[in-house]
Amino acid sequence: MNLAALYHRPDSEMAYLKTPTVFQIRLRTAKDDVNKVSLYYGDPYGNKVNEKDESQWEYQEIAMTKLGTSELYDYWQAEVSLPLKRLQYLFAVDFKDGQSYFYDDRHVWPATKKHLLASTCFRMPYFHEVDRKKAPAWVKDTVWYQIFPERFANGDKSNDPKGTLAWGSVPPSRTNYFGGDLQGVIDHLDYLKELGIGGIYFCPLFTAGSNHKYDTIDYFNIDPAFGDKAKFKELVDEAHKRGIKIMLDAVFNHMGDFAMQWQDVVKNGQASRFSDWFHVKSFPVSYEEDDLEHAKNISYDVFANTPHMPKLNTANPEVKAYLLEIATYWIKQFDIDAWRLDVANEVDHHFWKAFYEATHALKPDFYVVGEVWHSAQAWLAQEEFDAIMNYPFTEAILDGVILKKTKPKEMLAALLDNLMKYRDQTNQVMLNSLDTHDTARILTLAKGKQDLVKQALALMFVLPGSPCLYYGTEVGMAGGNDPACRACMVWDQTKQDLEMLAFTKKLIALRKKYASYLNQVPSWSEQAGLVTLNLGQKLQASFNLGQKAVAFPTVSQPLLANGLSDKQLRAGGFVISLAD
Amino acid sequence: MNLAALYHRPDSEMAYLKTPTVFQIRLRTAKDDVNKVSLYYGDPYGNKVNEKDESQWEYQEIAMTKLGTSELYDYWQAEVSLPLKRLQYLFAVDFKDGQSYFYDDRHVWPATKKHLLASTCFRMPYFHEVDRKKAPAWVKDTVWYQIFPERFANGDKSNDPKGTLAWGSVPPSRTNYFGGDLQGVIDHLDYLKELGIGGIYFCPLFTAGSNHKYDTIDYFNIDPAFGDKAKFKELVDEAHKRGIKIMLDAVFNHMGDFAMQWQDVVKNGQASRFSDWFHVKSFPVSYEEDDLEHAKNISYDVFANTPHMPKLNTANPEVKAYLLEIATYWIKQFDIDAWRLDVANEVDHHFWKAFYEATHALKPDFYVVGEVWHSAQAWLAQEEFDAIMNYPFTEAILDGVILKKTKPKEMLAALLDNLMKYRDQTNQVMLNSLDTHDTARILTLAKGKQDLVKQALALMFVLPGSPCLYYGTEVGMAGGNDPACRACMVWDQTKQDLEMLAFTKKLIALRKKYASYLNQVPSWSEQAGLVTLNLGQKLQASFNLGQKAVAFPTVSQPLLANGLSDKQLRAGGFVISLAD
Repeated sequence: MNLAALYHRPDSEMAYLKTPTVFQIRLRTAKDDVNKVSLYYGDPYGNKVNEKDESQWEYQEIAMTKLGTSELYDYWQAEVSLPLKRLQYLFAVDFKDGQSYFYDDRHVWPATKKHLLASTCFRMPYFHEVDRKKAPAWVKDTVWYQIFPERFANGDKSNDPKGTLAWGSVPPSRTNYFGGDLQGVIDHLDYLKELGIGGIYFCPLFTAGSNHKYDTIDYFNIDPAFGDKAKFKELVDEAHKRGIKIMLDAVFNHMGDFAMQWQDVVKNGQASRFSDWFHVKSFPVSYEEDDLEHAKNISYDVFANTPHMPKLNTANPEVKAYLLEIATYWIKQFDIDAWRLDVANEVDHHFWKAFYEATHALKPDFYVVGEVWHSAQAWLAQEEFDAIMNYPFTEAILDGVILKKTKPKEMLAALLDNLMKYRDQTNQVMLNSLDTHDTARILTLAKGKQDLVKQALALMFVLPGSPCLYYGTEVGMAGGNDPACRACMVWDQTKQDLEMLAFTKKLIALRKKYASYLNQVPSWSEQAGLVTLNLGQKLQASFNLGQKAVAFPTVSQPLLANGLSDKQLRAGGFVISLAD
Repeated sequence: MNLAALYHRPDSEMAYLKTPTVFQIRLRTAKDDVNKVSLYYGDPYGNKVNEKDESQWEYQEIAMTKLGTSELYDYWQAEVSLPLKRLQYLFAVDFKDGQSYFYDDRHVWPATKKHLLASTCFRMPYFHEVDRKKAPAWVKDTVWYQIFPERFANGDKSNDPKGTLAWGSVPPSRTNYFGGDLQGVIDHLDYLKELGIGGIYFCPLFTAGSNHKYDTIDYFNIDPAFGDKAKFKELVDEAHKRGIKIMLDAVFNHMGDFAMQWQDVVKNGQASRFSDWFHVKSFPVSYEEDDLEHAKNISYDVFANTPHMPKLNTANPEVKAYLLEIATYWIKQFDIDAWRLDVANEVDHHFWKAFYEATHALKPDFYVVGEVWHSAQAWLAQEEFDAIMNYPFTEAILDGVILKKTKPKEMLAALLDNLMKYRDQTNQVMLNSLDTHDTARILTLAKGKQDLVKQALALMFVLPGSPCLYYGTEVGMAGGNDPACRACMVWDQTKQDLEMLAFTKKLIALRKKYASYLNQVPSWSEQAGLVTLNLGQKLQASFNLGQKAVAFPTVSQPLLANGLSDKQLRAGGFVISLAD
């Protein structure tokens, strides 16, 4: 019996309004320590059962559902709804050793009548819809497609930078150009629509100096090598016509040191009207450079260790107004649907609250995704981000499926621990990806084993969240770390992996058809080496561990069935069976 | 070894900026399970120890301090400061069984080199002063005095209500009047100053129908039986001259049903311009009354079960503006220093954020105290309340000292569990009281045993928080539940307990002199029946359990020393020794 492991936190991801009238409650216990948890709940001002004892209360009792088991914990969940929209509750925990305990807001003590009378319940004082954490409804039905604009398609030769190379003629480098542009994207919107894509996540489009455009020069303009504002408007409109949303990338943590504001500080020091736009410790600003990305004794705060990215003082009202002007400009003028926020964790919470308010005032179902690699309850519980780039999810699947660092059950445990950090409505809109412009491509990580890639994709598409494909994955593109992962999109069908394309298309179709089931927290069971994922009421995904309970079946097994159908979709040893 | 009991939550009361440059970190482990915890910490972008392995990082190691032990947990704490204001960290836990584990943002696993390299740290991405939870500095040095205005002093006979009785001539009832007023308070400001009081917490002063004034009729006026606005202004000014702050009581969860707005709804139903000011389920509004405080089938949301207190819809912008106008009016026009918020937990978080912003825009060190009886992390972590009325603190001391329900060590454990729910800066301004206008007086709860009252007072004055005396406690007033606890203040010195008065004065002086030490989280130890509280670096408070380790010494023991001094203050068996 592990009393110290009981954990619940009121008014958090463990106790929250899921819908306007349904309150979801979670409890964490030690793994395999508890037989049953009952939730005792009722109205805090309910009739007293015994009028002589004011501490006694009228309660209902329901059994909590065991959601699953991770390395260390069991997770339990219940949903309750009360006519008066106010709630008090406690947990009655039956341990495997036969003992029963109450766990309330102040005590863990034996489940006796005396202790029930003396209990001080957890409280959800009133169900305020205004406080309920919202998420844009469209996102949970959306499959994203990430585009690195310089490498997706060259639709307009007239805007090609000097020295542009023939498409895909050489490997990508940090400095070469292939002419990718907005017209290229417009030309292939039908391709994306046919693939089943519902949203494009663009790497930066604004005027900048490099091919990756993360070194923004002008947040208010489209880079001329990509097109212009009219072309961007056309792109958004054409995408919207096809039901495709547009997400742009915003770098608000820092500026490039070439930015006008920073240059003014460099020139004028403390006298600069921008001296408070940054975090400068001493003037004149200075540093001792080691290399492009590292310096010593930098006299101002920067991103990482590079003196070329001075950190913005987002608590300065002028800076705040400037950045919010950018954030709202692209919504007001171009009707974009989402922002992805670079290095979002290093910017202050107050700024993001204002950002959320400003963007959502224009578009109530706007989607905000923060780049946060670690636990992000503090951003996701509040009106700051709808989602984060879900790296714990990525890591769990890569470790389990691609890199074989963990066993499937360990992978599922890590995924569950991650899901339990956030509200259901947040998990359903998490931006889940397997690779990006910043990482090696998954096919390369899998050492070319397509079956493993398919397994990983299948998992991404059946688990809660909003899946995001990195351009070219669907046609079997490979590539190591940056810059190799940024190769030109393969449009030549003779060079495309058409089987992977068909497979991906099936997965996307499956995802979209069953999104409401697939967005539930899955449970799983194992019997004779067969791990079965239960995905909502109708879907099951099973994968066979074979006799060696070590990992997914290897590609040497006869895994891939041809003739994929909605009824039975095979990816490696991964089988999704549909009940209907 | 209890791995499942390890608990840390980033960006919470377990990981927060205490000062602009000091980050405080806490860890919870199972009781008596761990020998030592080391914190490994460093800059997230620090130099790699091994350039070949990017996951390896340069870290510092410090031992965490064991703050104390409660019924189930040990609590550990460390403070770190880093020049670049950004931090990653993990815990290295040495269990008593000899095993060592790392606990990071995603794993609990053996403390091996391999696992250190693969760790994913907890993060404090950047120390943003704007996000640091603040608390008004003056509060932690303030001793409060709660006044029930109708019963403190009658300074102006001309405003006495009809039928006013001679001061203290009969016991208080729910309907009788004794003429207490603002002039009476002004007349005794010097008394309060001499006592050492730094703030007055007034029960409602606004125009209302009853003697308790919780049934507000007009939030914008002083009840004529108490005086007028000019008199209130005089009171605030005279108090301020003496260094005494003023806190008023605001009831924003609901209105009385006599309020103009509700009466309009009653009369005009859905057509009323105030129909959205409340939570009405069906028009015309109706209910089946059982008694004054209870009804069935109420067609609108109410406070508790009384149809006479319709709940306000604080998400309605008009209501929000109306209530914020009240909140700011009394600051702008009369310079009040604090609001105490009635039934604060049932009002939405968005409203309180706006309330905090509006009040603090006028007065940056304004103090906001919410009435929340249960765990209140959600309100205290954000810019909503500075403090709550600390009922878990009250309950722990009453149970341990007065009612003898718990042993001293259990009491101290409950106090520690409560302290560990909040940031240090919040604990330092919690409104701690032993009794109020809503409870029986502590002397009555103690069945007249003054020594127990003294012990409880001594504890309140040496523990973290802002102590609040209920008027008359200092002169030995008794009284059962409402209305008995609202008797007329005893001004006749022959009827005052002058020893209690002297004792209280000493305690207040001690509190004020050593506030900075007393506002630290205390630790305690027990040896041969003597429990010693360590209060910061200089102070110790010891209490002797005698041979029977059951509770505090009883009053039959020779406990009270005369000649109390700052050097040694005795309350019951409770001894405070000062090192300097």
